[in-house]
Amino acid sequence: MIKDKAVRKTAKGASTARVAQQSKLKTGARRHHDTNVDQILGSAASLFAEKSFGLASIREIAARANISFPRIYYYLRNKEELLYLIAKRGMERLLVSYPKRIEGVTDPAEKLRIFIENHVRLSTGNPSETKVAVQDTGKLSEPYLSEIRALERHYSMIFRTLLVEVAQAHGNELDRARSRVLTSLFFGALNSVPTWFDHARDAGRQQPIAAEIYRLFVNAV
Amino acid sequence: MIKDKAVRKTAKGASTARVAQQSKLKTGARRHHDTNVDQILGSAASLFAEKSFGLASIREIAARANISFPRIYYYLRNKEELLYLIAKRGMERLLVSYPKRIEGVTDPAEKLRIFIENHVRLSTGNPSETKVAVQDTGKLSEPYLSEIRALERHYSMIFRTLLVEVAQAHGNELDRARSRVLTSLFFGALNSVPTWFDHARDAGRQQPIAAEIYRLFVNAV
Repeated sequence: MIKDKAVRKTAKGASTARVAQQSKLKTGARRHHDTNVDQILGSAASLFAEKSFGLASIREIAARANISFPRIYYYLRNKEELLYLIAKRGMERLLVSYPKRIEGVTDPAEKLRIFIENHVRLSTGNPSETKVAVQDTGKLSEPYLSEIRALERHYSMIFRTLLVEVAQAHGNELDRARSRVLTSLFFGALNSVPTWFDHARDAGRQQPIAAEIYRLFVNAV
Repeated sequence: MIKDKAVRKTAKGASTARVAQQSKLKTGARRHHDTNVDQILGSAASLFAEKSFGLASIREIAARANISFPRIYYYLRNKEELLYLIAKRGMERLLVSYPKRIEGVTDPAEKLRIFIENHVRLSTGNPSETKVAVQDTGKLSEPYLSEIRALERHYSMIFRTLLVEVAQAHGNELDRARSRVLTSLFFGALNSVPTWFDHARDAGRQQPIAAEIYRLFVNAV
C-alpha cells in the first residue's frame, strides 16, 4: 500500500530508500494519486485565499476537488497539512526554477533580473497559492513552520547575496544592516505583487513589473 | 445619554450638529468614555494581531481592557466595529499628521521624504494596529469597507502625486502605468516594515529605514 505516503513523508524529508521506492511506484496508480493530490492542493489554496485558512473546511475542499468527504482523508491528515504542502510547493517551485534559469549566467545584475522575473512570473501564475503562502504560513505549528521558514531563509539569502555581489560590481560595499533592510523591503514589494496584480488589466504585464522592481534594487546598491 | 455615540457615529460621518454636540460633551465623563474606547481598541488590536481577527473573542478583549464583559457592549456593537475603528484610526493618524509635517515645504522630494518618515514612524509606533489594518481590513463588510478603502485611496493618491511631481522636478514624465506599479510596490515595501521591524534589534532605526525607502523611490523616477 502506498496510502498517502506522497503527502505524509514530506514533513520528515525523503530518505534515499524512500525516493527509490517512490520512483518504482511511478505507475499509473501513482500518477492518478499525484493528480488527486494536485487537485486537492489547488482547491485548498483557492478556498484558503477566498475565505481564509481558518474558515475554509475540509468538507468544502473535498467538494471543490470533486473528491468525496471520507475519501479525502486517504490523502491527508488535517487542514494544516494542506497549508504546509501549499507553502512548501510554492517555495520549491521558486528554488528549483531559479538555478535552471541562471545556468551559464555570470553577471550578478543579470542574475538579479532573472531572480525577480522568475518570482513575478511564478507568483502571478499561482495567485491563490502565493497569497496563502504569504498570509498564512505563520499559522503553521512545528515542525512544519521551521521547515518552511528554512526554505524561505534560503531563498531570501540568494537575493541578499546577489545584492552584495551587485554592489561589489558597482565598486561599493554593502554592509549587513543595509543588506538586511533592503532584502526585507524587496520581499515586501515582491510579495505584494499578487495582492494587486489584476489578471484582466495586467495580463502580459509581468515583464514590465519585474523590470520596475529590478531597476529599484539594482540602482540602490 | 451619550451611550457609545463616539463609536456608533463614525460609520455615518459626523454632521456639523453632532460635532457641536460632541464638543459640548467634552466633560470629565466624556473624557473617561474616550479613555475606555482607547483601551478597548488597543486591547482589540493586540489580540487581533496575536490570534487573528477571526479567533479573538469580545470576552478576551474585555478582559484585556479591564472592562467587564457585559459592560463592553456599552461601547460597541460587535467585533467588526472594532476592526473598522482600528483601521480608521490608523488611516486618520497618517492623514492628519502628514499635512502638518509638510507645512511650508515646497520641494516634492522633501515632501516624499517626510511622507515616508511619517509613515514608518507611525506604523512602527503602533505595530498591532498597523498589522491588523494591513491584514484584516479586507474582512470588513459594507459600509465599513468602502469607507476605509476611500481613506486608503486618498492616502495612496498623495504618494502617487508626489512621485509624478518628483519625476517632473527631474525633468521626466511618469506615465500612468508606471506610477501605478511604483505606487503599489511602494506600499508593498512600506506595509511590510511592521512585519519585520524588530523593536529590540531595530530600536531607533526608523530613520535609516525610511531613508532607504526614500532613496529607492526618489531615484526611480
